Amino acid sequence: MSASDSLARLAAVIESRKPQNGGDPKTSYVSRLLYKGPDAFLKKIGEEATEVVMAAKDADHGGDPQKIVYEVADLWFHSMIALAHYGLTPADVIAELEHREGTSGIEEKALRKLAGHESKDQGGSA
Amino acid sequence: MSASDSLARLAAVIESRKPQNGGDPKTSYVSRLLYKGPDAFLKKIGEEATEVVMAAKDADHGGDPQKIVYEVADLWFHSMIALAHYGLTPADVIAELEHREGTSGIEEKALRKLAGHESKDQGGSA
Amino acid sequence: MSASDSLARLAAVIESRKPQNGGDPKTSYVSRLLYKGPDAFLKKIGEEATEVVMAAKDADHGGDPQKIVYEVADLWFHSMIALAHYGLTPADVIAELEHREGTSGIEEKALRKLAGHESKDQGGSA
Amino acid sequence: MSASDSLARLAAVIESRKPQNGGDPKTSYVSRLLYKGPDAFLKKIGEEATEVVMAAKDADHGGDPQKIVYEVADLWFHSMIALAHYGLTPADVIAELEHREGTSGIEEKALRKLAGHESKDQGGSA
Repeated sequence: MSASDSLARLAAVIESRKPQNGGDPKTSYVSRLLYKGPDAFLKKIGEEATEVVMAAKDADHGGDPQKIVYEVADLWFHSMIALAHYGLTPADVIAELEHREGTSGIEEKALRKLAGHESKDQGGSA
Repeated sequence: MSASDSLARLAAVIESRKPQNGGDPKTSYVSRLLYKGPDAFLKKIGEEATEVVMAAKDADHGGDPQKIVYEVADLWFHSMIALAHYGLTPADVIAELEHREGTSGIEEKALRKLAGHESKDQGGSA
Repeated sequence: MSASDSLARLAAVIESRKPQNGGDPKTSYVSRLLYKGPDAFLKKIGEEATEVVMAAKDADHGGDPQKIVYEVADLWFHSMIALAHYGLTPADVIAELEHREGTSGIEEKALRKLAGHESKDQGGSA
Repeated sequence: MSASDSLARLAAVIESRKPQNGGDPKTSYVSRLLYKGPDAFLKKIGEEATEVVMAAKDADHGGDPQKIVYEVADLWFHSMIALAHYGLTPADVIAELEHREGTSGIEEKALRKLAGHESKDQGGSA
């Protein structure tokens, strides 16, 4: 099964967990986050990002890199809950990544564009 | 093109940007982050997670949801740089997500398992 | 000099850096963040929190704990820039901490109240 | 009561909650976080930073700024738990902030120094 199928199917599961689609906040973790609203799942994104960082630092010091996989999965999963809430899908994210990579057919240029975005709010000296 | 192909190809681009694979920190943003080492790209994960949250809050108040797509793409992209550094791939993350979903063939149960993980460090009352 | 004096004086410096108070975004880091607006300094809060976490993990593995002091200082400093933008002060934060501690004169009870707040968005089992 | 007294007294309360000082993880939130170890309270720092950002974005759109005070208090409080774990105090953080401000007696220069630190890991173009 391709990643496309996997992410699309997981997105469909999340979609079905929306309270308006019959998801039950009492029995489903995803339904409960969606029922509580944005602050509940956005907070998790901040928390899961921190867990990725901690797992990575542990790996730097001899810890099991598999834990990074676990935490990135948590981070992406909660990102997908947020996407679902706003009517978006992982396919939209992947299309955006493809768009950057393919811009003018030159990968490096696309990455420079990304870099420009990354540093747009950071100046040089004070 | 499937999401699998897209993520795998982007992972290959990142792999080629590793300094040991010929990537040049002077001309490539990805090479520079990998050259600087974990703190450089891990910090970006924390920053990009915050940008996802800000874009989502803006969307709650009438902002363009497309900005969320852009910021999640940044977050996943920097996650993939971290994965590459530790010898991991997006396919590992997707396999982990599939594993959870498929556990004993019952989606809801798998999600409960995830929920248990999510809340394992949070107690009830003090 | 007391911590109160220190934080109040630093808050006054930040206040003076507001563009409307004559701060110059071209020469002052604080002025530039305030001039750019909330996303600029809020992003830094997410980034600096991540740096605290990284410094702490490094200390867990033999790194210099003084780096934690440095990163917490960065985090509190950028928190104070945000406070200033919204017309708030570190004295407000300290009053809130005092209020919690003193509630009904029983520290432990105040901390339980805090704990209740902390876990209010986290359920038990899925 | 000065902020110095307040922060020092809160730090003393946290110190008394360490399991080795008689704190009981079953009845005290702080003891439980300290008993669980770094990942438990570091994760909270990432989560609370995200809550500060969310409260600020809400204030940008008409929400109550007092919520920012509440969330910054949470963030500083959990920072202080981390400081305690590593044998550090809020006084160390305030000394660091004073040191920066006072460098060569010129505030602006001190802030430039800070700005240099802030941007040290961010390059210009890719």
